[in-house]
Parts: sequence; C-alpha cells; structure tokens
Amino acid sequence: MMRLKPLMRSTALGRTAGRIHARALQVAGSRLQDHGRGLSPALLATGLGLLGLTMLTPSAQLEAAMDEALEEPVVVPGEFKEGLPTFSLADVATHVSAKAGGIWVLYKHGVYDVSKFISAHPGGTKLLLAAGKSIEPFWQIYAAHNHADVHKILETLRIGNLDADDVRALEEERKKKFGDGPYANEPMRHPAMKINSHQPFNGEPPAELLMESFITPNDLFFVRNHLPVPDLDADSHRLELFGPGLGEPAGISLSIDELKATFKEHTVVTTIQCAGNRRAEMSNIKQVNGLSWDTTALSTAKWTGVLLSDVLAHYGVTDEGDLEHCHLEGLDRDITGQCYGASIPLATALDKRKDVLLAYAMNDEPIPRDHGYPLRAIVPGTVGARNVKFLGRIIVSEEEYGGFWQQKDYRGFPPNVDYATEDFHRYAGASIQELPVQSAITEPKGGRLWPLEGSEEVDVMTIKGYAWSGGGRNILRVDVSLDGGATWQEATLAPEATAQRYNRAWAWTPWTLDVDIDDNTKELNIVCKAIDSSYNVQPDTIAPIWNMRGVLNNAWHRVHVPINKPPPAADEEDRDQD
Amino acid sequence: MMRLKPLMRSTALGRTAGRIHARALQVAGSRLQDHGRGLSPALLATGLGLLGLTMLTPSAQLEAAMDEALEEPVVVPGEFKEGLPTFSLADVATHVSAKAGGIWVLYKHGVYDVSKFISAHPGGTKLLLAAGKSIEPFWQIYAAHNHADVHKILETLRIGNLDADDVRALEEERKKKFGDGPYANEPMRHPAMKINSHQPFNGEPPAELLMESFITPNDLFFVRNHLPVPDLDADSHRLELFGPGLGEPAGISLSIDELKATFKEHTVVTTIQCAGNRRAEMSNIKQVNGLSWDTTALSTAKWTGVLLSDVLAHYGVTDEGDLEHCHLEGLDRDITGQCYGASIPLATALDKRKDVLLAYAMNDEPIPRDHGYPLRAIVPGTVGARNVKFLGRIIVSEEEYGGFWQQKDYRGFPPNVDYATEDFHRYAGASIQELPVQSAITEPKGGRLWPLEGSEEVDVMTIKGYAWSGGGRNILRVDVSLDGGATWQEATLAPEATAQRYNRAWAWTPWTLDVDIDDNTKELNIVCKAIDSSYNVQPDTIAPIWNMRGVLNNAWHRVHVPINKPPPAADEEDRDQD
Repeated sequence: MMRLKPLMRSTALGRTAGRIHARALQVAGSRLQDHGRGLSPALLATGLGLLGLTMLTPSAQLEAAMDEALEEPVVVPGEFKEGLPTFSLADVATHVSAKAGGIWVLYKHGVYDVSKFISAHPGGTKLLLAAGKSIEPFWQIYAAHNHADVHKILETLRIGNLDADDVRALEEERKKKFGDGPYANEPMRHPAMKINSHQPFNGEPPAELLMESFITPNDLFFVRNHLPVPDLDADSHRLELFGPGLGEPAGISLSIDELKATFKEHTVVTTIQCAGNRRAEMSNIKQVNGLSWDTTALSTAKWTGVLLSDVLAHYGVTDEGDLEHCHLEGLDRDITGQCYGASIPLATALDKRKDVLLAYAMNDEPIPRDHGYPLRAIVPGTVGARNVKFLGRIIVSEEEYGGFWQQKDYRGFPPNVDYATEDFHRYAGASIQELPVQSAITEPKGGRLWPLEGSEEVDVMTIKGYAWSGGGRNILRVDVSLDGGATWQEATLAPEATAQRYNRAWAWTPWTLDVDIDDNTKELNIVCKAIDSSYNVQPDTIAPIWNMRGVLNNAWHRVHVPINKPPPAADEEDRDQD
Repeated sequence: MMRLKPLMRSTALGRTAGRIHARALQVAGSRLQDHGRGLSPALLATGLGLLGLTMLTPSAQLEAAMDEALEEPVVVPGEFKEGLPTFSLADVATHVSAKAGGIWVLYKHGVYDVSKFISAHPGGTKLLLAAGKSIEPFWQIYAAHNHADVHKILETLRIGNLDADDVRALEEERKKKFGDGPYANEPMRHPAMKINSHQPFNGEPPAELLMESFITPNDLFFVRNHLPVPDLDADSHRLELFGPGLGEPAGISLSIDELKATFKEHTVVTTIQCAGNRRAEMSNIKQVNGLSWDTTALSTAKWTGVLLSDVLAHYGVTDEGDLEHCHLEGLDRDITGQCYGASIPLATALDKRKDVLLAYAMNDEPIPRDHGYPLRAIVPGTVGARNVKFLGRIIVSEEEYGGFWQQKDYRGFPPNVDYATEDFHRYAGASIQELPVQSAITEPKGGRLWPLEGSEEVDVMTIKGYAWSGGGRNILRVDVSLDGGATWQEATLAPEATAQRYNRAWAWTPWTLDVDIDDNTKELNIVCKAIDSSYNVQPDTIAPIWNMRGVLNNAWHRVHVPINKPPPAADEEDRDQD
C-alpha cells in the first residue's frame, strides 16, 4: 500500500479525487501547452511525479524507494545541502530530456534529476512540468495534505545546489509575481485553475475537471477573494457577536472551541456560486465590468460547523421587531484597514431550515486559507458573496450592512442602465441574496471539433453539465437541445442531487445526456436549460438580463460544436452493406 | 346614509370596491353587448339598479323610498302575490323601453316595472339588464352581503305575477342551464366574470377590473372549482386530522370554534394563482388541454384563520422522520363520492414563516361558498390547486396525496411530450407547489386601437399590470418594453406591494408605466417581464416552456397595440409652430 494515496485508501470520495487529480494534471498540462510554452510531450511527462502522479502507477521498484523515503522523518525541501555540486540556472535549463543529460528541475536551493522517476510513469503525454525550471509555480497539488510526503520523495532525487546568485534571482522573480506587499503571503493554488485575477486571487477550475465529482476537492474549489488572504490561527480565533440581546454593549466573544462545545455540530453539502459566474458570455453582448468568469465560478463542498440559527436562538435573537439584517464581517482587510463584509436577511439567519452555518471544516479538513480559514459563514442557496470567509464578527441590525460590497456591488441593474447613465447608482436593485435557477454545459467545449483527436467513441457524444438553483430549490429537470432550442430532450440527473430534501437542495445537480451522432452531422448547437422546484426556468437570451455589473447571467447556456466524424472502418462499411 | 354602501362607509378598501363595482357593471354590460344580444343603450341602463348601481348616484327621492323599504322586515322576492295582475312572458318581453310602456323585468313569479328606478340613474349607457326578461342570470352582485336589501327594493317595484305556466317554463330553462343534478345548488356569480366552464364553475374577472384594487373584492375573485360547490354549515363543520401524533387511530376532530378558541388568529394577504393562468396564450403555440384561462386566473385577498404550523406543533408533528407530506382534503365530491384533495410538503405546513392558514374569513367576511366556505387551506406562494377549499381533513403522511389532481394533474411536462407521446404519464414532473415569477399587462388590451373612443388622454398611455412570484419572493423590478423586447423601461411598483416582508411577499405587485405617445407612433409591441427577490426572471418565449397541460406559462407577456391618435387640435398646432 502506498502512503501517497491517503484519499484512495479509504472512501469513494477518495477514488473520485484520485480520478480528478489524474485529469487535473492532463488539463494543467494542456493549459500550459495552450499557453504556448512549446515543451515536448516527453518534457511534459516530467510533471508526473512531482505534480501528484506519484499516486497513480509507479513501478514496484520506485514504489519501494518511495515507501522507504516515507519512513524517514520530515524533510524541508530545497534547503542548501553541503557536499553537493553547484549548478547554475543555465545548466539546469539545458536538462530538459534524457538526450540532453536528464530531466532536471529546481526547488529553491535544490537541483533534482527526475529522469528515472519519469521513466517509471509511461503515460501522460499531455503532462507537463517546467523541466529545466523551478517547479514552484506548479507545485500546488496536495498542498494541504501531501506536501511533506512529496517533499521527501523530491529530496531522494536531489543531485545538487543551485548557484546562490540564481537562488536570489528566482526569489526576486517570485516577489515580482507575488509582491512583497499585502499579497506576499498568499497560499499556493492548483495549477489547473484558470486565473481571472492574481491580486486578489480569483480562479476557477476547468469545467471538465469540476464535473468529475459531486463534491469538489478543496484545491479545485473556485476561489473568489476580494482582498489578501489573512494569516489566521484557529486556536486564538474569536468570533464576536453584537446587537440587541448579544451582550450589549460589549458583545459576545466565542472561540471556535467554545462554538463546538456549546452548539450541536451540523453538516451541509452546498454549492457556492459567484454572482459573476458566466460573466464572460454577458460581455459578448456588451462589455461589462468585472472578473471574466467562465462557467465554473461555482463548486460544491461538504461544510461542517454549527447552525447560526442555534447560536442566535441561544441568545434570544428574533426578527419580530425591527431587526432585519445579520451582518457578517471577515478579517481580511485592505490597506486602509477596511474588511470585507456583507449581510443577509435576519430571517435567513434565524431559519433553521435555511441551514446557515458557522463552518470550521470543508470536506472534513480545516477550511483551507483560500476558502476562509478558520471560520466561514456558509449561507446555502445564497450568492457566494454572502458566504463570508475569515469570519470574525456578526452584527444583528435594523440596517443592511453598509460596506462597499453590500451597497455598491452585488446588486442587479436593469438592462437599460450602463456606466454612461447619469447617476447610475440610483438604478441599483436589491442586494443579491438567493440566486436564480442556473445550468451550463461543461462538455463538450464550444468551438472545439468533435470527436477529440484519438477518441475511441465517435458515435455517441456524452454531453455533461450542471444545474443549480438558489434558495434550496431542487432541480426538477434539465432540457437539452441540439438544434439551438427548437427541440428538446431530457437529461439524466445525478442521483446524489435528486435525493436532496424538498427546498433544501443546497447542492448542484450534475447531469449527462448521451446523444447518437449521425455520420452526416456537421455541427450541433447545444443548449441547456434547467427547471427548479418552483418551476422557475432560465431566460432564453442574455441581452434582456444584461446588466452593467455582469452578474446573474442565467440565460440558456449554448455551445456550438463542429462535428468531424472519421469515416467508418472498412469492416463496419461491410456490415452496413449486409 | 345609504344602507347599500356597507363597503363604502368604512374604509379605503370600501371606496375602491365601489369604484370597482361601477366599472364592473360597465364591463359586464360591454361583455353582454359583445355577445351580440343587440339591446339598445336605453335598455342596457335598466341593469343599473338591480345590478348594484343603487349604490352609486340615486336621486334624493328614490333614496328616501329605498331607505323606507329597508326599514321593513326581510322579504322573499319573486313569490306569488295575491291581488296583482297576471302577465305572460310575451307581455313582459314587449316592455323593453319607456315608449313600449315601460321597462319590465322578471324574477320568479314577480313582474317588476323598473322604469322610474332607471330614470333616476342617468349614466351608464353601457349598462345592461335583460329588460323584458328574467334578471336572475345577471343578479349576482352582492350575492353575499346585499341580497336581502336589494330584494326589498325590487319588491317596491312589483307590478304583477308571471303566468304560472311561464314560471314553470323559466324554471325548466334554468334547470337546463344549471341542471338539477350535482350542480343544481351552485352560488350566484358576478356577471362580469369571464366564464371558462359552467360545470364545474370556472371564471376569471376582467383584467381592467382586477387591477382597480390591491385587494380583490370577493365576488370578483377568480373561481376555479373542480367539483360542485358543497352546501356546508360553519357551525356543524368539523376538521379532522390524521397521522402519527394526531390521536391515532381515531384522529382528531375540531370545530371551527374550537380552532378559534385554541389557536392564535393570524391574517395573511395573499395572491392565489391558478397553474393554468395564461393558458390561452400557450394554446396559440400548440393546442393544450385545459380551461382557456386568460391573464386573470389570479386574485388577492386578506385571509383570516389559524396557522397550520401552530396546529401541527400543538400535536407535536415534525418532519424529522419519514413524514414528508401534508394532505388536504375538501368536502366537495364527485358523483362517485371522491373528494377534491391535494398535498403540500410537510416542511411547508410546519414552517411558521410560510404562513399556511386554516382560514375561515376572506376579506373580513365568512369565506363565500365559491371560495371554500366554511374553511379553506391557504398556502401562500403555492399554486391555487393546493389551497384546498371546503377543508374537511388533514392527513400527515410519508406519501404524497394519491388523488387524481395531485397525481395526474398539476404537474409539469417537458416541451417535447404531448398526448401523442407513448406512455406520456411517465414524463410527468414533480407536483406543482411554489410557482415561478410571473407578470402580465392588463391595460391596454392587445389588438384594440388606442386611444379608446372618447378618451381624453391621447398623449400619454398608462400601461398597467401585475407581477407576482411564488414562495413569497418579492418582486424587485418590472421591465416594460414598447418595441417587442429590444429596449426596456422600469415600471413603478405599488407601495403596498413593495412594503411586504423579505421572502414573505405573498401578495402580488401591481405596476404602472406612463409612456408618451408620439404623433407618429403607429403601433406598440408592449412586453413586460418581472424579476423576483431570487433574481429569477421570466423566459422570453412560450414555445420552450410549452407543456401539454398548458400550465406554468410565465413567458414574457406581450400585447400589440395599434395607435391611432386624433390629429392635434388647431390651437395646439399653432403652439407647435411658435
């Protein structure tokens, strides 16, 4: 048994995660290829081991070596090691293949020869590691749970030290990229993420990866940060509560351990979606302002914590008077000290059926920094922006939260208002809370020839996607059209999704549809639309819901797929003639 | 003070009701005219008094006479009276104008000369009563609360008895129309109602009447009956409750007085909408099966009763086990004894924030027979079909209600399934519960030339309509287009509507938009669409939501209005040339 398969050892989730990570590497590789780095397939394969493929199909020999490595105590990778030869960046850069004397990579002071490691991994022509370069920018898989083990393996491949001047140069380069200001202490991210903004970090997973599992692995969960990620500590963290009944005027202060000790633990599987999901399509109608999210600014996780309704009930808070809002403030701050904050209706916070959580775990792990460590408000069915990360303060109030993102952002605008409209702010609609019904096609990709090169299946196309609605509304049906919306077929919905409780279906509904592809089919205009338990549907087109902030795009999702089926094999032709 | 103005005496609601009734008569008159009965304006005026116009502008003389009549004890109208002359149907039929010897009407045995009464009411050229005929089919205004008073006035106008043979002939005619079977004992209905089905009775109010007030007067509230209206008695009525915790196996039986004595009274203003509202438009795409409702199979009332959540909590019912459904059975039955019944999710029934009522009053009166006397389930935000009338029985269950209307009707179907589809029942979606966001234009009417003949305002068109969403979701915005959806303006929302609580906005949102009409405008293609608090929107077109049952039509509502402005007056032209 391999030590590097902790997820695969135990659960179905683990097996899924393994599959996802395998695919993640393919995608990460092809993304880098797409970026035109021009590395050969052989070099791409270098990425295998150090990007996590150690867990896939290592040879018995290597497995034994690795097991041995894992018996050793924790190592700090990339430290200067006495008695090893020194190489320059230029030396390392030449070692990009076996013919060139081996495949070398860098990590801080360390120079490593990964040739043998790679030779034990025959597959993965699409895989990539920056052979001849630092692996740091790509070394982000299993950051949360496998780092130490991978470090050990890496050090078994150590062949030398990098020249000290070059170490400094690499450090400068890193600073140039990540800065040494407010963003100097950001967590590592998965290399497969499509990055929409570096500072603050905003990234979404590739659609085909995201739909590999019902629960999104933590490091593939889309990230929408508004500010630098704070460096907090779960043990010393305090949650403060203010408002009538909440220990006025001093408020109430609770540690995470006190929350756990006082209130019943509660678990919710919920999809979080950014208001700007599918904004890129909206900009095709007319440019909007905001991060250019594609179709995957949403992900699904299992969150564990205590119910906010229990906490508020414990202190006797009700919404029978004038109190209408529940503020949620994070501990992430801008350079002026302003934090990210938002509010939700107090009715939502108080309603046990709304399952609002003060969460301290994400998929059974401490919440990763990017996702709100150590405490996050989880407001199921409600726009991501109200699921406040790094939660430090709750205030019950008569007024909606006054901060920028509540007042000036995350609101709907009419389609006739844009930045040229005089005093456009007065057209801002109510703050976005529960989201409308949504769906999107994740496979096939629009504009890419089908079948993909090398595909074995050329007669049946599997169309995949997700559907979801806010407010806990279940997805009743997903209709798929191949002809731009003229006729429709019903997709098959994931059983985990359809088993959710009535109007507490916080998690999405993955769906698939297999369609026969005729030899004469030249293109498909695939469209999907979902129906929720309130029989709300998606609008046909984007223009009438266009808004200058580019939020709330839930129009039918459309992809155009050109078809180029290879001619049938000879024996098939024979059969056809029978 | 007139006795016939009970609503007008007290409240703003009363004043509105008065205006509505005035308009109701106009509409009723024009509806009858539309039906080609060819009666002259003078004859139409006969309808004034007996159709309710007594409450408008009677002369002082007549008012005194009427007040006198009202001091007398209750009279039974239309009984045979000794000592009066006998007239035949043919005699009465000739008395259709002052010139013809007076305007006569019939009611059972009674013959009445209403000429003087009419002469006191100068207005109302569009009004109609069946002069020379029985007033019974039209005598439906104030059926609930003014009948006795109107009877007295009628008897002051009595001039004779109808020939006994003719009385029998009229009775035969009535039976032919209303039957002497299960539908022989139906209540009277407002003559302005557009009737979609007589047996069972299904009718909707004219759109322009409906939008005259936020609260719909009881006799203009749309009626959707599935079976004959039962003849029940509030004093002896029992509500039975069955299920785990509910006094098994015998169940619990409560009188309405016991409900009132045990539970706190609760009031909810809610809009009830039929699943088939706007079905007629759907049939324009492709014929659907069902009553051809126009845009007004919805109305709004104030309901008073006790909270079902209080009742269930009182007996300790929860949905933490396998119980998921709450059955609601009426006491209306078909000839086989099967009652109308439905179910709602138990989560909805138990949730005090959902405001589900066991209602015994509608707009501060006992619920009229057509609307569920003496007890009705009011399930705010949920399709009309679950707001079960004549409520006799509640059953908490693991299973959804098994009756026809729950299992075989009131479900969504995909657009690709119709009655020609093999085994179409297996495509039936979940039972319809909370409804999607909806809106419609009630004025101007599509296809009618604007301005209407005789209109004073020819430069500004006031567009009116309603918006509503299920599940208590507030209406955030209504967008109106004059060009078929290319550009949009924001309508003004009724303040009673926007004051509703977050996600407990059970009542609709009336809206208006004044638009300038240019002299060169030849037509408008008016479209409306609403946005609810979950930012759900209406779909652009009907075809993709078409379903064989014709339910859930919430596509954009569109009306085409040809414009024919009269040329500007001479002085205006002069001014234009300045």
